[in-house]
Amino acid sequence: MKLKRSSRLVDMTGFLLRHPRKVISLSYFSDRYGSAKSSISEDLAIIKENFESMGVGRLQTLAGATGGVTYVPFMARVEAEQLLDGLKEQMTQKDRLLPGGYLYMTDILGEPKYVNAIGRLIASVYVNEKIDVIMTMETKGIPIAYAVASECNVPMVIVRRSSKVTEGPTVSMNYISGSSKRIQTMVLPRRSLREYTRVLIVDDFMKAGGTMKGMMNLLKEFGAALAGMAVFVEKKDEQPKLVDHYTSLLKLSMTEQDNTLKIENGNVMDQLPNIGMRSEAPD
Amino acid sequence: MKLKRSSRLVDMTGFLLRHPRKVISLSYFSDRYGSAKSSISEDLAIIKENFESMGVGRLQTLAGATGGVTYVPFMARVEAEQLLDGLKEQMTQKDRLLPGGYLYMTDILGEPKYVNAIGRLIASVYVNEKIDVIMTMETKGIPIAYAVASECNVPMVIVRRSSKVTEGPTVSMNYISGSSKRIQTMVLPRRSLREYTRVLIVDDFMKAGGTMKGMMNLLKEFGAALAGMAVFVEKKDEQPKLVDHYTSLLKLSMTEQDNTLKIENGNVMDQLPNIGMRSEAPD
Repeated sequence: MKLKRSSRLVDMTGFLLRHPRKVISLSYFSDRYGSAKSSISEDLAIIKENFESMGVGRLQTLAGATGGVTYVPFMARVEAEQLLDGLKEQMTQKDRLLPGGYLYMTDILGEPKYVNAIGRLIASVYVNEKIDVIMTMETKGIPIAYAVASECNVPMVIVRRSSKVTEGPTVSMNYISGSSKRIQTMVLPRRSLREYTRVLIVDDFMKAGGTMKGMMNLLKEFGAALAGMAVFVEKKDEQPKLVDHYTSLLKLSMTEQDNTLKIENGNVMDQLPNIGMRSEAPD
Repeated sequence: MKLKRSSRLVDMTGFLLRHPRKVISLSYFSDRYGSAKSSISEDLAIIKENFESMGVGRLQTLAGATGGVTYVPFMARVEAEQLLDGLKEQMTQKDRLLPGGYLYMTDILGEPKYVNAIGRLIASVYVNEKIDVIMTMETKGIPIAYAVASECNVPMVIVRRSSKVTEGPTVSMNYISGSSKRIQTMVLPRRSLREYTRVLIVDDFMKAGGTMKGMMNLLKEFGAALAGMAVFVEKKDEQPKLVDHYTSLLKLSMTEQDNTLKIENGNVMDQLPNIGMRSEAPD
């Protein structure tokens, strides 16, 4: 069918948003809309201008016969700051403190409006990295890891605490939890990671980093490579950390005596690359 | 700032896609773009026409002083058929059969291109229902449940097999697994569901439906209401089913003797409402 520019813009915008980090050839759009490639290029220039000025992401165009375009989601700095501020406000509500100095954040980890944004921010930090797979440990971190996988348009694999009959042959590994010093087990299906795969590890919470370190070691068993590590919340006073070079969105400190908690930014704002996008927030 | 129509169309499309099932007032867009409401209405007419002809979803407009617009994601029938065909092809690959007659589908459950589409199809079945929360049982069903929650723009809660110190007070319940007849436990944080909440239960796999039935009973403990039940794959020959009125995308039958499996459509195509959208697939 032949579409007018206005309708092409609507459709291309949706199409690009649904296919992040994939090269879409100009011929594909040209066939889809029955339009000349020159018109498609003009459409893409309009979309690029808008995505970059509104802080939605970059549109990378490849010129030449194999000409194509890739939408790379990216969160502008100002939106990232707003997200962290909103999360800090949510998380310092008094009724989140649990006995033993734990923090209730299960609701936030199941709320798409937060989780999708958290996923977009983590993906933005690794915007210049080649990522093949997102890995997480069951259970609470799965939604965030899945949101990152969606933004990066790559599969997610879930490390489990015991092997399941539905997962076929598995690789199992013991590791020592950094804070409790207990021996724990992690299990991953044999066929879920190939050699040389570049893996971004994502989790919801990190104390000393024992689980993170365990997952790093598990990667070695598969001959896979570590592309990065990101956590939603790290506990500040837990020292020494067993891992370094990780990204954290928030940093939590808690005084068990008077049950007060403090949440500040993690290192994410320092790690967010400057990709020269204008920085108005999309909403 | 003042935006031209072409740029408004790009931005509004992205904005609506990021905020499904929410009423956005015309004033909001009018302020956002410094444009008259009449221009915004014209933009929305273009977007509506495109979304409906390309099978992206409906755009419902509310006229009057409180005028607004809601984007409701919906999967066109032809795209739903394509999705099911693609999944059936993937899942009948020979190396998915595991000893004991189990099926390996962990990879599919972690692949955003499938999971997002599965989530959109399930949300489409319940497009005319009021849904407040998506509920699932850990672990493998979480990505699909999260994708449904994203499409419905509502929170997801995860039922767990044992209580965790990070979740505060919980409600715990024993139930009998329909196929193995074993007593199992399910646990949900006390504060994760309010009374009268309408819950859509989503899971990856159903044999006799014991887990589903357990979750139905758990809802009663919270005074919450069942809005629907959906599973990705149901096992065909497991009889009798402990639940009825559920949606299934695929139906699996397996012969353990010669290890052959057959996958056919579940009842989802019968349950997908006819909302009068034109039915070209977005891809």
